[in-house]
Amino acid sequence: MDPRIREHAEIIVEHSLEIRPGDNVVVSAPSVADDLEVAVYELLADAGANPISATSPLEGRTNPRAGRAYLRNREDFETPAHHQALFDAADAFLIVRAFENVAEVGDVDPTTMTAASKANRPVQEVRLAKRWCLTQFPAVGNAQIAEMSTEAYENFVWDAVIRDWEEQRDHQAEMVEILDDADEVRIVSGDSTDLTMSLAGNLTLNDYGKKNLPGGEVFTAPVPDSVEGEVHFDLPLYHNGREVTDAVLRFENGEVVSHSAGKNEEVLTAILETDDGARRLGELGIGMNRGIDEFTYNMLFDEKMGDTVHMAVGSAYAETVGPGNERNESATHVDMIVDMADESFIEVDGEVVQRNGTFRFEAGFEG
Amino acid sequence: MDPRIREHAEIIVEHSLEIRPGDNVVVSAPSVADDLEVAVYELLADAGANPISATSPLEGRTNPRAGRAYLRNREDFETPAHHQALFDAADAFLIVRAFENVAEVGDVDPTTMTAASKANRPVQEVRLAKRWCLTQFPAVGNAQIAEMSTEAYENFVWDAVIRDWEEQRDHQAEMVEILDDADEVRIVSGDSTDLTMSLAGNLTLNDYGKKNLPGGEVFTAPVPDSVEGEVHFDLPLYHNGREVTDAVLRFENGEVVSHSAGKNEEVLTAILETDDGARRLGELGIGMNRGIDEFTYNMLFDEKMGDTVHMAVGSAYAETVGPGNERNESATHVDMIVDMADESFIEVDGEVVQRNGTFRFEAGFEG
Repeated sequence: MDPRIREHAEIIVEHSLEIRPGDNVVVSAPSVADDLEVAVYELLADAGANPISATSPLEGRTNPRAGRAYLRNREDFETPAHHQALFDAADAFLIVRAFENVAEVGDVDPTTMTAASKANRPVQEVRLAKRWCLTQFPAVGNAQIAEMSTEAYENFVWDAVIRDWEEQRDHQAEMVEILDDADEVRIVSGDSTDLTMSLAGNLTLNDYGKKNLPGGEVFTAPVPDSVEGEVHFDLPLYHNGREVTDAVLRFENGEVVSHSAGKNEEVLTAILETDDGARRLGELGIGMNRGIDEFTYNMLFDEKMGDTVHMAVGSAYAETVGPGNERNESATHVDMIVDMADESFIEVDGEVVQRNGTFRFEAGFEG
Repeated sequence: MDPRIREHAEIIVEHSLEIRPGDNVVVSAPSVADDLEVAVYELLADAGANPISATSPLEGRTNPRAGRAYLRNREDFETPAHHQALFDAADAFLIVRAFENVAEVGDVDPTTMTAASKANRPVQEVRLAKRWCLTQFPAVGNAQIAEMSTEAYENFVWDAVIRDWEEQRDHQAEMVEILDDADEVRIVSGDSTDLTMSLAGNLTLNDYGKKNLPGGEVFTAPVPDSVEGEVHFDLPLYHNGREVTDAVLRFENGEVVSHSAGKNEEVLTAILETDDGARRLGELGIGMNRGIDEFTYNMLFDEKMGDTVHMAVGSAYAETVGPGNERNESATHVDMIVDMADESFIEVDGEVVQRNGTFRFEAGFEG
């Protein structure tokens, strides 16, 4: 076994999930990630935890062939009571993404995926309120869509994952402070993106490899009704096996009033039609991981890139919503990315805090 | 996909598990059996059932590499509350056996396996009281130990599984009647096996592809204290990756008072030392499936062979124990087989009902 797999497992069990004796753990991993699962099970045993492995077809991604078979053959979905009971009684969750073929669920109708997500939402809400970690194993399908050899992709993944996460946390802390104090944020990129939103009263979290591994972003929730203007997500979105390019959303009073995309617009439409909350922003995130410098069609990595911002339509993370503020609720949460490397800036309460991808507290910043 | 995989899945979903709309199903299958899992998920969707896939390392066989990693690194085991909650809320269970390497857990200490089984017992008791089916997918490791090519083994498995199970039920019904009315049973084979036991008041079940697929046996429970004499299991037992040959058990007042084996006696010893119930018989079964005519080191098939009987030390199936009779309880249940083809007979209340593998109601029987 590649020794980096055991290092990866150590970070998951000790840093990300902070496993304690007696913890009931649920591991969701596709079979192509068996090596990582084995390494994780060794450490869960050492730590005195009780794991089981479990995947749901409603999720579609951790058991993709069976998930696809199920989703294509059923039209209405229920929240499975036994899955819910499992999650209710669990303490910590590991989800491993790894595709032999990233297009495996690409021929499932987007509205079916949406219906499945909705049915799965109550179960996922249970997980989100507990300890959880989402990570990546370097599988061939992910390497292929990144246009990398398998070995180059392994290096890419483990370089991003096996890091000094305390140092990353300190680097990001300055941006957390800026956003935590912020009222209005404006994001401008080229001629096609000029968006403002209020963060007043909401909380900014420092993601340093806990719930997402790799981590490397700071993120918060916009006040739902405050979002105004237009945003052009110039980096593509790869959603359930299909690529959406040049997604454009126009917001009025916090709601998407028009949208378009270059390719697979119907996928974007299905996302926005999930429910009312899917037409509002649930997250604003700022990528700050300088160790990720290539776009790989994988949101877990792409949204952390050092000169990007991302926004998610759909549900807001409860812990980013300040007391008394409204939480945007939805069965979906889909991130999309704006490249901030050129002709771009982030303004917080009238002051530029990032220009062309360089933060105010980094060398080379030009206010 | 081999069309026999979808036929196999149909038998599982319709005949064995009788899946109904809304059923919460747990599928436990190793990744090498992915094709069967996909076919089962298609049919579960059609039937309106809610499946999730789940495996526990305490079971050790459905996720063998992770299971081994866990078992070798932990010494004491707990019953995982989240696994229990999952099973409590489920309606039906499918367990698929399939090994890439049948020796995968062969280097786990037998006493560790026993401790894990004990911790897992409460969860398994929940399953045993509901609808469940244990079946086999033809994987390379199982083919290898059967000394068959992969293709020959595929033919062997699907010939045994894809059958007219109603016809098999009728064939077996005569033997059910004989044993249901029986008081004392005597089993004699060569010079080394002469065992008597009472079945008085207990119930004989007809296994025609419901809980075991393939099925093909009738089975009941001996009255725990009634077993007397010696039995030589002349067909080998393959238990958790290790072969036990020529197991011999000597019973007095229903309890094993001495035992031996040709090879890996310590595996047999560990089984018998699980608990008090592991030193008593929990099952007497008569193989009646004439479609299985080769020994393949796989209990699911071997115990169904047409001229064998098998007995299990450990727990009795609750449904075989008559009202008011004692049920043998144990954390284990391990079947072992006696070849009845030569110099052998089964006597029920003084009458020979099988001689040299041929039943009284079959052509060629010589009383």
